Amino acid sequence: MAEAPLFKRVTLIGIGLIGSSLARVMQRENLAGEIVVSTRSEQTLKRAIELGLCNRGTMDAGEAARDADLVIICTPMGAYEAIGKHIAPFLKEGAIVSDVGSVKMPVFETLAPQLPDHVHLVPGHPVAGTEHSGPDAGFPELFKGRWTILTPAEGADDSAVEKVKELWLRAEAKVEVMDAGHHDQVLAITSHLPHLIAYTIVGTATDLGDDLQKEVIQFSASGFRDFTRIAASDPTMWRDIFLTNKEAVLEVLGRFDEDLTELKRAIRKGDGNTLFEHFTRTRAIRRGVVDAQQDDVPAPLGAIPGPYSNDD
Amino acid sequence: MAEAPLFKRVTLIGIGLIGSSLARVMQRENLAGEIVVSTRSEQTLKRAIELGLCNRGTMDAGEAARDADLVIICTPMGAYEAIGKHIAPFLKEGAIVSDVGSVKMPVFETLAPQLPDHVHLVPGHPVAGTEHSGPDAGFPELFKGRWTILTPAEGADDSAVEKVKELWLRAEAKVEVMDAGHHDQVLAITSHLPHLIAYTIVGTATDLGDDLQKEVIQFSASGFRDFTRIAASDPTMWRDIFLTNKEAVLEVLGRFDEDLTELKRAIRKGDGNTLFEHFTRTRAIRRGVVDAQQDDVPAPLGAIPGPYSNDD
Repeated sequence: MAEAPLFKRVTLIGIGLIGSSLARVMQRENLAGEIVVSTRSEQTLKRAIELGLCNRGTMDAGEAARDADLVIICTPMGAYEAIGKHIAPFLKEGAIVSDVGSVKMPVFETLAPQLPDHVHLVPGHPVAGTEHSGPDAGFPELFKGRWTILTPAEGADDSAVEKVKELWLRAEAKVEVMDAGHHDQVLAITSHLPHLIAYTIVGTATDLGDDLQKEVIQFSASGFRDFTRIAASDPTMWRDIFLTNKEAVLEVLGRFDEDLTELKRAIRKGDGNTLFEHFTRTRAIRRGVVDAQQDDVPAPLGAIPGPYSNDD
Repeated sequence: MAEAPLFKRVTLIGIGLIGSSLARVMQRENLAGEIVVSTRSEQTLKRAIELGLCNRGTMDAGEAARDADLVIICTPMGAYEAIGKHIAPFLKEGAIVSDVGSVKMPVFETLAPQLPDHVHLVPGHPVAGTEHSGPDAGFPELFKGRWTILTPAEGADDSAVEKVKELWLRAEAKVEVMDAGHHDQVLAITSHLPHLIAYTIVGTATDLGDDLQKEVIQFSASGFRDFTRIAASDPTMWRDIFLTNKEAVLEVLGRFDEDLTELKRAIRKGDGNTLFEHFTRTRAIRRGVVDAQQDDVPAPLGAIPGPYSNDD
């Protein structure tokens, strides 16, 4: 007889790129006896059902969450508070509530206060994605070889954390558990600042005259192209990231500003030594990335094109 | 009988990534009756000879340029003036002088005044590269499918321009001819600004505490990684780019600064609409890049890793 699935009933609230990829993983790995999907858009729900991503679909998140063993919120973070309020009365004792949002402190500020004491909150963040969204964009290998970071509160139920961890391991993710505040600080540097800068730089080019803009596109392979893909990421998701991780982002942005001002001054003064020293120092970080083999995993959120380069 | 080569004698001054790749192209395509290489470093010259990249090598650039039909300067731009002075007396009537520097106006300011009137100056810029340097790093496919931009002065000799163009076409490059000043403006946006920003952001991370830096590397695949490769490009070359394309870089940097300040203010104020509108606008540029098929050519200078992403 087949092994019993990890969860009897899993509810996915939201079925975009991440939610639909998770549904596909759970189907492939037989992790859920039943998958219930809830969406706010009728069209998306219809599509999820057509794609066979769930056993059952409803536009009522509360109804979807009823009797679920695991509820995973896969919506933009701006919706968390309302969803929490809506599903709370339907959550059964011992249910696990998780999410896939890119910022983790707000989960404790907006979602946690809505939930009854008898459920276990295990926030998660799969550091994975593409520039595409919606239920058609998902695929089960999305998380393979990438990090998923879990940020349960201190004293969270161990077995609940272990079950969520197991789900992500079956998605072939590498799993790390860390404090939510620390997560937000690390991601502000590794992800949020790079995305903000890419959005800025592509926006700057958008404001150029038409002729120049055409040439910027023509010669985009010289560096700019890579920023355009990052800046094509989902606008709603990124708006919410910057609104919710405000302090950490503004803090690293302040440091970045200082450093940029220093380089700008060196250019203005024709100070070649400062430029050379700075450009040499950054090579060490690159070596760290290559040594950590972070250079051969698939690219994530707002990911980067796939051409080879000489040394690949 | 085999066709006569495009040039009887070609002199390469400098034999790093670009120079050695060009030598390999000329050998593969039989474009040069003889290749003479000159370097400043004895060790590099020895290596170029060991690699069979030339028929003859010398540390005297003047001696190397004697009787050459084509001289291509493949050194950092900071050396152009001295090289021009050094080779001028040895250049034969009708010789073509070209280069591969990333900024084109300075060629007319530093190199051109040194050259005798009886030679043809055809500056060039292959928009190609990797994060590696030196004669071992070169390979003949480096220029394939990428742009090479030629920036001859108004009234330059047509047949000289055509011969240089033919060389790059045989390297499988796409060739565009444009005004030097315009080139510098376009590249300031598509290449120099992205590189400066990448250098800055990686530098900012370098200044973090050790623990945090370790985690930045661990989770670098979330966006940061792509900046580290760009920021591992050759420091000497990039120092010279920023010193020589100062005005155009400072101008786009000024626009970038304004735009970043606007986004920063939106984050600080919690102004989600401004963020959302900006993030939506940048998607149009991305579509332009994809439509222009600039997304499937190999990545150039300070290039980007090669993982697939869903849509590749």
